Amino acid sequence: MDTEVAIIGGGPSGLLLSQLLNRAGVATVVLERASRAHVLSRIRAGVLEAGTMALLQEAGVAERMMREGHPHAGCYLTDDDLMVRINFEELTGKSVMVYGQTEVTADLYAAQEAMGATVIHGVQDVVIDGADTPAPAVEYTLNGERKRLTCAYVAGCDGFHGVSRKTIPAAKRQEFERVYPFGWLGVLSRTRPAHEELIYASSGHGFALASMRNENLSRYYVQVPLTDKVEAWSDQRFWDKLRACLPGDVAAAMETGPSIEKSIAPLRSFVSEPLRWGRLFLVGDAAHIVPPTGAKGLNLAASDVFYLYQALISAVKSGDTAGIDGYSARALTRIWKAMRFSWQMTTMLHQFDGEDSFAGQMRKATLKHLSQSETARRDLAENYIGLPY
Amino acid sequence: MDTEVAIIGGGPSGLLLSQLLNRAGVATVVLERASRAHVLSRIRAGVLEAGTMALLQEAGVAERMMREGHPHAGCYLTDDDLMVRINFEELTGKSVMVYGQTEVTADLYAAQEAMGATVIHGVQDVVIDGADTPAPAVEYTLNGERKRLTCAYVAGCDGFHGVSRKTIPAAKRQEFERVYPFGWLGVLSRTRPAHEELIYASSGHGFALASMRNENLSRYYVQVPLTDKVEAWSDQRFWDKLRACLPGDVAAAMETGPSIEKSIAPLRSFVSEPLRWGRLFLVGDAAHIVPPTGAKGLNLAASDVFYLYQALISAVKSGDTAGIDGYSARALTRIWKAMRFSWQMTTMLHQFDGEDSFAGQMRKATLKHLSQSETARRDLAENYIGLPY
Repeated sequence: MDTEVAIIGGGPSGLLLSQLLNRAGVATVVLERASRAHVLSRIRAGVLEAGTMALLQEAGVAERMMREGHPHAGCYLTDDDLMVRINFEELTGKSVMVYGQTEVTADLYAAQEAMGATVIHGVQDVVIDGADTPAPAVEYTLNGERKRLTCAYVAGCDGFHGVSRKTIPAAKRQEFERVYPFGWLGVLSRTRPAHEELIYASSGHGFALASMRNENLSRYYVQVPLTDKVEAWSDQRFWDKLRACLPGDVAAAMETGPSIEKSIAPLRSFVSEPLRWGRLFLVGDAAHIVPPTGAKGLNLAASDVFYLYQALISAVKSGDTAGIDGYSARALTRIWKAMRFSWQMTTMLHQFDGEDSFAGQMRKATLKHLSQSETARRDLAENYIGLPY
Repeated sequence: MDTEVAIIGGGPSGLLLSQLLNRAGVATVVLERASRAHVLSRIRAGVLEAGTMALLQEAGVAERMMREGHPHAGCYLTDDDLMVRINFEELTGKSVMVYGQTEVTADLYAAQEAMGATVIHGVQDVVIDGADTPAPAVEYTLNGERKRLTCAYVAGCDGFHGVSRKTIPAAKRQEFERVYPFGWLGVLSRTRPAHEELIYASSGHGFALASMRNENLSRYYVQVPLTDKVEAWSDQRFWDKLRACLPGDVAAAMETGPSIEKSIAPLRSFVSEPLRWGRLFLVGDAAHIVPPTGAKGLNLAASDVFYLYQALISAVKSGDTAGIDGYSARALTRIWKAMRFSWQMTTMLHQFDGEDSFAGQMRKATLKHLSQSETARRDLAENYIGLPY
């Protein structure tokens, strides 16, 4: 057997799993299609739950995050009349950490390299062979040469478009999906963030999110029709739209500048059940997608890793398979709760094409309820900072 | 001037307003289209919030309710897997009272009669004249004779189909509406209720509510397509459907019997803003309708009455119009919160035709969240027992 655990996908979930397994003395090989530079160029969210932070600490990759990350004790939900602070710290005793996914991935690469873990880039045509047999293997092409990696277990960390999920026969799994009728136009710019905490803005002009990577790097989003092309959005048009969506005083004081990245992403909720087929285990986006509202994507991948790494250590080290037998159900319980929260945040904050006159009133009433009910704010805060593992 | 306050509509909101005003020495005349017997034959919900109970006490009509009503310290939300108790008493320190609206109305009639208040039945062709002038009047036909009642103020308590709301020019008001794509088939039967507390059941067979009037009178509902005719629902078919929706053990033990009333009602959310035009004030269903999920209809009429009766006493007795000037905004704040709760309960518990595979999962996840989060249960309980006036 070439390795204990073959990990398909060198994004944050694959690397974090590899890191945690290696530290426990379980051998891994990570197979990644793209180059390291390409993986690190992907721009993703960066709001880490307390549980994700703890897991990064456990993996020995939290030092820079603790030094350079920005703890956020709260966030804001706004509409054209209200600006409601959700005080995570007061309501739950916890906060979140703003630290880009790109940085998490860079830290993981550095740590993997430092411990001499095997991460192979540029693999193509990956095929998972015999996942439902006692002796699985992963076949792939590297530099034109076909390779076969035998292993005890395969972890599918290769995202929504990866091969892992599709390896599970359609008859053995069930998909649940919601496609939202709008997308997010995102802009990254070297400007001072509009506010020191995130602002989720539900306005008469649609939804906007004012977020950031650090004190000089802002990340903004506005809701756009799915049919919009990014070319139709000049920087000026973007800033005008964003200003219209944000509370007046925030908009007036907001610094603007050239965009350094601009793209439109669709919003989707997706789950494929179960997360296990034989010796193949799905992790993160390979099995489930959340809309970005509520920042659950990376955090949900982290809790999958949390459940799976312990289970794999027990299975490899002592032959105890209770953990891997229970992995799918255990992870899915938490996944569905985060799916619910992301869906609720999304439907609560966005305008829907062709909606009736009542819909906007329900958005306003929901924000009003949050502004007046500590219980409602606590429920949101408990979900936002992350439900217990 | 014939009376201080002309009250259009002799249902519970009109009678309660009349009762509270009369006790404070403000003269009223209540005009009701139907006979007293007909008003008392209307079958309506009967879950009273603590605030409604207090208001009935203030009106001197709570004695029989306190004796014969059934305090409920909680209710249940169920699906095919879970049975979640919402413990109002533990979560909020309060409970609700199950006491039929018909009984409330009967108590109010008796009290009005005892104090010699004027309630005129059988009025037809009501017209509100000069509502936006200092000298309004209500014209109506009684026993073939046209009458004119002059007054200082007009209270429109005549329900969704009444003349009061329509008296406000369309240009002066705004309507918000959501029509739900299903109805409730309701059955009243002289059977022991399936459970001692209400069960809101969100099942794979659709929504059902197991409610009651008293220990020998059950009130049940099942979700049906709007196109269904009541004739298509034999008692047997109804009981079979209800059993399929309720948790297995509850369904198995449920007593069944002949229906004594059976009808299909559509579900609607509706608000007309503002609640005031000159000297005309809308109260209860005349201005707003909630779907019955969450039992807010009568309770919302009661809070309207609470705000309005104090305002009218100040206006009539001391010429202080601050209360009536603020009535619409004050009442609407609470109305929108109850609209939100009723809408959320309705969308959370019902199946929608043509829904995607994700929708049912969100209902299950919402119930799961309620089962695991005391904060979520408290939020529901605080709304159910009634937000503060």
